[in-house]
Amino acid sequence: MGHEYFLPPEKVHFVWNNALPPALEIESGDVVVYDLRDVTDNQITPASTADALTSLDWSRIYPLGGPVFVKGAKPGDVLEVEILDLHPKGWGWTGIIPGFGLLEEEFNKPYLRIWDLSAGDHTLLREDICIPLDPFCGTMGVAPGEKGEFPVMPPGRFGGNMDIRHLTRGTTLLLPVQVEGALFSCGDCHAAQGDGEVCVTGIEAPMHVALRFRVRKDRSIPEPQFFTAGPLTSKYDGKGYYATTGISPDLMEASRKAVRHMIEHLVRTYNLTPEDAYVLCSVVVDLKISEVVDKPNWIVTAYLPLGIFV
Amino acid sequence: MGHEYFLPPEKVHFVWNNALPPALEIESGDVVVYDLRDVTDNQITPASTADALTSLDWSRIYPLGGPVFVKGAKPGDVLEVEILDLHPKGWGWTGIIPGFGLLEEEFNKPYLRIWDLSAGDHTLLREDICIPLDPFCGTMGVAPGEKGEFPVMPPGRFGGNMDIRHLTRGTTLLLPVQVEGALFSCGDCHAAQGDGEVCVTGIEAPMHVALRFRVRKDRSIPEPQFFTAGPLTSKYDGKGYYATTGISPDLMEASRKAVRHMIEHLVRTYNLTPEDAYVLCSVVVDLKISEVVDKPNWIVTAYLPLGIFV
Repeated sequence: MGHEYFLPPEKVHFVWNNALPPALEIESGDVVVYDLRDVTDNQITPASTADALTSLDWSRIYPLGGPVFVKGAKPGDVLEVEILDLHPKGWGWTGIIPGFGLLEEEFNKPYLRIWDLSAGDHTLLREDICIPLDPFCGTMGVAPGEKGEFPVMPPGRFGGNMDIRHLTRGTTLLLPVQVEGALFSCGDCHAAQGDGEVCVTGIEAPMHVALRFRVRKDRSIPEPQFFTAGPLTSKYDGKGYYATTGISPDLMEASRKAVRHMIEHLVRTYNLTPEDAYVLCSVVVDLKISEVVDKPNWIVTAYLPLGIFV
Repeated sequence: MGHEYFLPPEKVHFVWNNALPPALEIESGDVVVYDLRDVTDNQITPASTADALTSLDWSRIYPLGGPVFVKGAKPGDVLEVEILDLHPKGWGWTGIIPGFGLLEEEFNKPYLRIWDLSAGDHTLLREDICIPLDPFCGTMGVAPGEKGEFPVMPPGRFGGNMDIRHLTRGTTLLLPVQVEGALFSCGDCHAAQGDGEVCVTGIEAPMHVALRFRVRKDRSIPEPQFFTAGPLTSKYDGKGYYATTGISPDLMEASRKAVRHMIEHLVRTYNLTPEDAYVLCSVVVDLKISEVVDKPNWIVTAYLPLGIFV
């Protein structure tokens, strides 16, 4: 069954660096329970206003719990991370941060929403817009193989800041081990997020997380892979989807167009401000690549789950 | 209720051109039932071999049923297309065509699979790999606003060859009308396809299709939009998903990596040939944009529904 460890909230680091001393050493099969801060390291609180987003100390962004040294893990192995449980701590936030996000050119002013997550399984954008929670860690990774310090924002073959919304409870993540002991770290928890995370934040929330680790010697993988149970979006599926296409020779521009069209739809149909519409896209709208072969125009489609409108 | 019309299979055209004479004139509210050829205009038959893919007459690719003139439709209106029903005619094909597809550099030899669709709701890649059918028209569009002839392959703001897998029975597609009467055409039917259509073909199949048309004056849209019922993937969801990530500063390269990793996984785990694995990706694997904001690396994830393995 393995041992269960608790990693306290002070055991964090803010860059990837395979020379960091382990916060914990465990055996394959052990469980670690984390108490994880929000992505700003408590610089945003339930009392914050949008101004807080313009004065962030970026050296404190991405506090990651860890690193955890898993005995026996060698470069070329796979670290299997079984996601046992995640519990947001009662509040969260979503922000538009100047200089970031898919539509950074048109949304260049800071905007902050604080979410009440105390209901446990949902939160409200407005009394008639209910967002189901589907928590996951935005960042889970092993230490990179290269020496030195690396910022957390870009993900890489070691995983890291992947922001994959389906890494939820019950999912098993596979990471390619780069250094001895794997040196796993995690953080940047999201209580909800759509595929794309278009405004650069999901529902950012401090969280308790429980993960089981196993070292697998039977295979190697080039980049992260995972198994997740279906159905993928059962919390949203009930009332169908409204979808907007973005058509362009460039997938990035196609993504921008699809999201712009969705924002227009949300503003017109539901009387939302553009900022709240953008935030809603980031936390519940999914970007799919509908086709990437019909030369020279590709299609990205944004899917809005209508089940959020109550 | 409107009238119901039948558009016979000889009423086709092979390019977009808003000067083409209407094959049919209808009122808003009417239904048209189509008898649609496969995308090659019968150049591929159930008896074909891969050689047929190297000698295609490209002037006969994309036979589209239509155009249908919808009375009262003006530029700036929306043509609402209610997708009432689609029935494949009992067989289909998927091909790897040199010079096309997401991985055209490594898959540069013609490959053809003929599918038996006579069961109606599924087809087999192998006796232990069962693909549920979820038919849709790969191409539905109104005539472009610009004068002249335009090839069908690239989609545009008028719709056209969108290859959006969720345009299935029960979905309502909205198209921005470009010319008087809309001049709607459709074809290129797929019995199944994943988001991305990565090898450039889905399960291409001749099909009977029924569509209801309505002219809407209450709104304008910049590019196609649609409403589709949920759940989106209930035919596949039962056993969860295996997912591979592709991480890159370029969404196209991220897509390629995710699909390459999925092909490796399929070959290793299920003993498929690389060609069959690529075909399987095209007909059932979905590409999602997991994040497009974690500068400078984006993630495209390929999701394989495990429900196909029986």
